[in-house]
Amino acid sequence: MSPFSLALAVPALLAQAEPLPSWNDGAARQAIVAFVEKVTRPGSVDFVPVPERIAVFDNDGTLWAEQPLYFQALFALDRVRAMAPQHPEWKEQEPFASVLRGDTKAALAGGEKALLELVMATHAGLTTEEFERIVREWLTSAKHPTTGKPYPAMVYQPMLEVLAYLRANGFKTFLVSGGGIEFLRVFAERVYGVPPEQVVGSSIVTKYEASSGTPRLVRQPEMDFLDDKEGKPVAIQKHIGRRPVMAFGNSDGDFQMLEWTTSGSGPRFGLLVHHDDGEREWAYDRESHVGQLARGLDEAARRGWTVVSMKGDWKTVYPAR
Amino acid sequence: MSPFSLALAVPALLAQAEPLPSWNDGAARQAIVAFVEKVTRPGSVDFVPVPERIAVFDNDGTLWAEQPLYFQALFALDRVRAMAPQHPEWKEQEPFASVLRGDTKAALAGGEKALLELVMATHAGLTTEEFERIVREWLTSAKHPTTGKPYPAMVYQPMLEVLAYLRANGFKTFLVSGGGIEFLRVFAERVYGVPPEQVVGSSIVTKYEASSGTPRLVRQPEMDFLDDKEGKPVAIQKHIGRRPVMAFGNSDGDFQMLEWTTSGSGPRFGLLVHHDDGEREWAYDRESHVGQLARGLDEAARRGWTVVSMKGDWKTVYPAR
Repeated sequence: MSPFSLALAVPALLAQAEPLPSWNDGAARQAIVAFVEKVTRPGSVDFVPVPERIAVFDNDGTLWAEQPLYFQALFALDRVRAMAPQHPEWKEQEPFASVLRGDTKAALAGGEKALLELVMATHAGLTTEEFERIVREWLTSAKHPTTGKPYPAMVYQPMLEVLAYLRANGFKTFLVSGGGIEFLRVFAERVYGVPPEQVVGSSIVTKYEASSGTPRLVRQPEMDFLDDKEGKPVAIQKHIGRRPVMAFGNSDGDFQMLEWTTSGSGPRFGLLVHHDDGEREWAYDRESHVGQLARGLDEAARRGWTVVSMKGDWKTVYPAR
Repeated sequence: MSPFSLALAVPALLAQAEPLPSWNDGAARQAIVAFVEKVTRPGSVDFVPVPERIAVFDNDGTLWAEQPLYFQALFALDRVRAMAPQHPEWKEQEPFASVLRGDTKAALAGGEKALLELVMATHAGLTTEEFERIVREWLTSAKHPTTGKPYPAMVYQPMLEVLAYLRANGFKTFLVSGGGIEFLRVFAERVYGVPPEQVVGSSIVTKYEASSGTPRLVRQPEMDFLDDKEGKPVAIQKHIGRRPVMAFGNSDGDFQMLEWTTSGSGPRFGLLVHHDDGEREWAYDRESHVGQLARGLDEAARRGWTVVSMKGDWKTVYPAR
């Protein structure tokens, strides 16, 4: 099975009578359904016209897993290994040397700076089309280090159902992720049903070159935009130009996105996925380096945000096939 | 009549049997219709699936007029006059002093730098919502200096028909303009039927501020992105993430957008509106400061781009009402 064929699970849902079948019938599921029903019921005081039905979703930890590291970081590490024969100097040069020795912890000891160096070395210097091809190959062949699954198989079935349910109710669904926009686009359409023009993410600078006669967009080793924390409302405004009605996240990197969404006038909905299922997935929140969730947990009740317990609210985590 | 009600002209077209009724039946109209028919006919070797039917449109000079200055520059000049009571220092300070004396030519003698100064003084330092309100008021009340029409009445009826025709054939229509993205969004949906999330333009830096308790996006006096020339393919990739199938422009600022669009594999379509109608509109091309078109005219034939003569191809320029 191609991991991309998971997307087939989505349209099938539309025919189902009961929405969100992988959700237990608890407060979280009820909150989602009650909200969608009230904003779509003609004549409802909370009715939202179709063009304004914008829902935004974080990706890492909200739509697919993010442990032990963001999957895009795992992609960068795999790329360093694949590119090593062309870079003999990496054997002596950190953080590459540690990656090649298999010591990820040491490689990332340099924090943001080390990670950025790895990302630039593996994500820049090629055209947008070459990058897309490389990511596509990785997504179809690479396996997650602990589950052994292809990465696109580690999407959350209950969230695929939310995406499909919202679209069936006239919502436009957008990704708003700290991950790379071009990385996300390679699978967002097939796996989530979200077309490239509805993907918002971090970006590096891209340059248009036509001097050779064949126009190309070349990825530069320079950050353009970091779509995280305060960056998320800014990116939402830039790409969507309209305040969303619903926002879904899982970490404090999503705090401002939920805050911006739910502080608009009229009906608004914010939801945080809480990773409390150490058996079926990973259990982490306040102390985690990846996907830290502290302020969100502290303020969710006061702000009226729904907190999803993966353990209690989800019948299943990953798609069955 | 509200100038915004012009948008009503668009849906009405969908019911019409003959597409593009305001176009004379010449080579340009035939090229548009033949292209749309071949890419939408099931089984055609040139068939393009619906998700890939992306069409991009420049705005100034392509969808609405742009003389004697880009309308957004006229907006900035009007704003300087409206804001002058709060800025007594402008009486002594260029380029503001010249604007207030009514000498636009002197005000803009400083070129890009002067224009940028006027734009920053009038477009920054306020929230996205305040800016939207101000632009909306201007669009409903201001009149063009020579035609006396409200600016939204100076859209091109034949191009409204192209937008509607493409959408009726499964295309997603995007604006890709050198104008300000937030400026365009105020009227794009009502006048062109293009929702905010399908508007791409130049931008200034926006900052998220939540410290006061009421989250706001505040426009900063700093350029973020200039969506012109080489910037257009870059912005298309960033916002749309897919190479368009059709591109419509009118000036050399659109050259790279058409080049990028039409150099993709498979069927591609590029079109330039040539302003050759000095009676009904303005006649200008190679020597014009606004909307200069030289390289495009030189290379259109070789590149297979359609050149529209406003004089010969269009039965009418502005909407009748």
